Amino acid sequence: MPRASAGPVPVVVMGLGVIGQEIARAAQLSPEVELIGAMDANPQLVGRPLGEVLGTPALKVKVAGSLEAAVGRRKGVVLLHATGSRLEQVMDQLLDAVNLGMPVVSTCEELAFPFLKYPELAEKLDRAAQKAGVAVLGTGVNPGFVMDRLVATLGQACGPVRHATVTRVVDARTRREALQRKIGAGLSEDEFFALVDKEQMGHVGLVESAALCALGLGLDCDDFEEEIVPVFAEEDITGGAFPVKKGRVAGIFQSAVGLEEGQERVRLELTIAVGADNPGDRIEIEADSKLELEIRGGVPGDRATANTLVNAAPRVTAAEAGLLTVLELPAGR
Amino acid sequence: MPRASAGPVPVVVMGLGVIGQEIARAAQLSPEVELIGAMDANPQLVGRPLGEVLGTPALKVKVAGSLEAAVGRRKGVVLLHATGSRLEQVMDQLLDAVNLGMPVVSTCEELAFPFLKYPELAEKLDRAAQKAGVAVLGTGVNPGFVMDRLVATLGQACGPVRHATVTRVVDARTRREALQRKIGAGLSEDEFFALVDKEQMGHVGLVESAALCALGLGLDCDDFEEEIVPVFAEEDITGGAFPVKKGRVAGIFQSAVGLEEGQERVRLELTIAVGADNPGDRIEIEADSKLELEIRGGVPGDRATANTLVNAAPRVTAAEAGLLTVLELPAGR
Repeated sequence: MPRASAGPVPVVVMGLGVIGQEIARAAQLSPEVELIGAMDANPQLVGRPLGEVLGTPALKVKVAGSLEAAVGRRKGVVLLHATGSRLEQVMDQLLDAVNLGMPVVSTCEELAFPFLKYPELAEKLDRAAQKAGVAVLGTGVNPGFVMDRLVATLGQACGPVRHATVTRVVDARTRREALQRKIGAGLSEDEFFALVDKEQMGHVGLVESAALCALGLGLDCDDFEEEIVPVFAEEDITGGAFPVKKGRVAGIFQSAVGLEEGQERVRLELTIAVGADNPGDRIEIEADSKLELEIRGGVPGDRATANTLVNAAPRVTAAEAGLLTVLELPAGR
Repeated sequence: MPRASAGPVPVVVMGLGVIGQEIARAAQLSPEVELIGAMDANPQLVGRPLGEVLGTPALKVKVAGSLEAAVGRRKGVVLLHATGSRLEQVMDQLLDAVNLGMPVVSTCEELAFPFLKYPELAEKLDRAAQKAGVAVLGTGVNPGFVMDRLVATLGQACGPVRHATVTRVVDARTRREALQRKIGAGLSEDEFFALVDKEQMGHVGLVESAALCALGLGLDCDDFEEEIVPVFAEEDITGGAFPVKKGRVAGIFQSAVGLEEGQERVRLELTIAVGADNPGDRIEIEADSKLELEIRGGVPGDRATANTLVNAAPRVTAAEAGLLTVLELPAGR
């Protein structure tokens, strides 16, 4: 039966970058959580009123330099974590929070399905979380929602799935300048691939989405392949943070494919480019029955990522201890 | 962490009408469940090989006349229940199953959210299920998926929701003749409203979906209103099980609205009519950010309902005891 709510869940945000700030703002708006503080390693932020950083002056609590200081004496505080995409980089932060007895919801893309690339770190984190009696979850919009959780949900109305295709097209002009730079807009082909070689180009988390997608649809994929290529401007592109000349890189096209005994079962295709045509999220499941879903325009990145974290906070509080995936989250608030 | 599966969950189907048969077929196809038997009250079915009823001859188990006979000595059997839309009609069957220690997944539309119309029956069922240590769930496509669970899932990427609109349009020509009759195709306006007055016309479960939708989106609706009117044929309609003349009833338009202090917060609109234009399922959530989702053609009714029941069976086995809603189901298989 629908249970009575135990009141808002206290949360602390770690990492006050663009996404961390969005999370803090979303937390302020949600009746389900109570934003009690934030921490950041940047000494220029520590000690400043959080509301000043966020542009919401009412929030007078000061940015802390440590998690302990941000949490204070409050019990049952959930950490909303937004400091990095790579699991190895944030592993110590996650373990610290877990060892403080805090459930964690993180934007760390590789944490969305860490079992694929980092089975040992995943097991270590799972054990620590179970020992501490808290749940740990990686989520966001991508990975965490449009290319995995939503696909698995749609699959609940399908019989055995033969194949799933998920495409996400983002016109980067609708996103911040840093993202337009990150996807290589304005670069030459050589500059683009030089960054690919240095693993400094490309969206982190697509293959994790592919693995989640397969698992959520009951597909037993034994291999995953990723590819990244540039999208070139077919004409001069304006309207973004900076103009992109015809022939230069407009952004990325990235794919992740899941295979079962050599046969393709899931295909995820992500285009993020300035001027990308027909932006949106599309899911096609081949099964009985075949289903096609479209979100025209697509689920927006930063804002919706913040919402998925905030909405997950009360869910992880109620969840079984251990390392979770979004596939285990319930549908409702 | 993704846990190892404990093998297929044994299931028994109760009620071998059109939907019950679809469920049994879907169960045969799913690697997650094992169809071990079926029961039906119809003496003409009892004793016949189930495969003969389903048209899948390999299945030699005989249709039982009682639940005990269908289950035999197997433990942990989930009941897939498809005998009626009204909770009062099926309450005893549900209690019998629960008292036998069986988790239940049912197509009973009013069971999808029984707290609205039948709080006492809901509490009785919840208590019995908790006492027996099993979970009970009402699901299907509508209610149970397109107009509630999927809406709540989409809402996970949104901030506080101001309003949600969900429309489902079904061209009844793609459905069986019984359904075309059920929605009044071919009737006069007077005949249609005579059946409405006798509560023999209209889709059961729309207001339950509205309540689930509101709850899943974090909306605190205190009142729900339903309406049903005929859709008239604007021209002669062919292509269905029987022709419908211009001016006669082509089907139903039904709405359910959830209000909070007099203000509309959710609106569900269902059109089922022969020749209905632009069939599909559409969700529009007004929030930060605004999201619009479309499933062109729509999730098909009977087949997908069967799949939602079969896919839910392993989930209810793992769930907390008591009366559940689809909002508590995880996204993945």
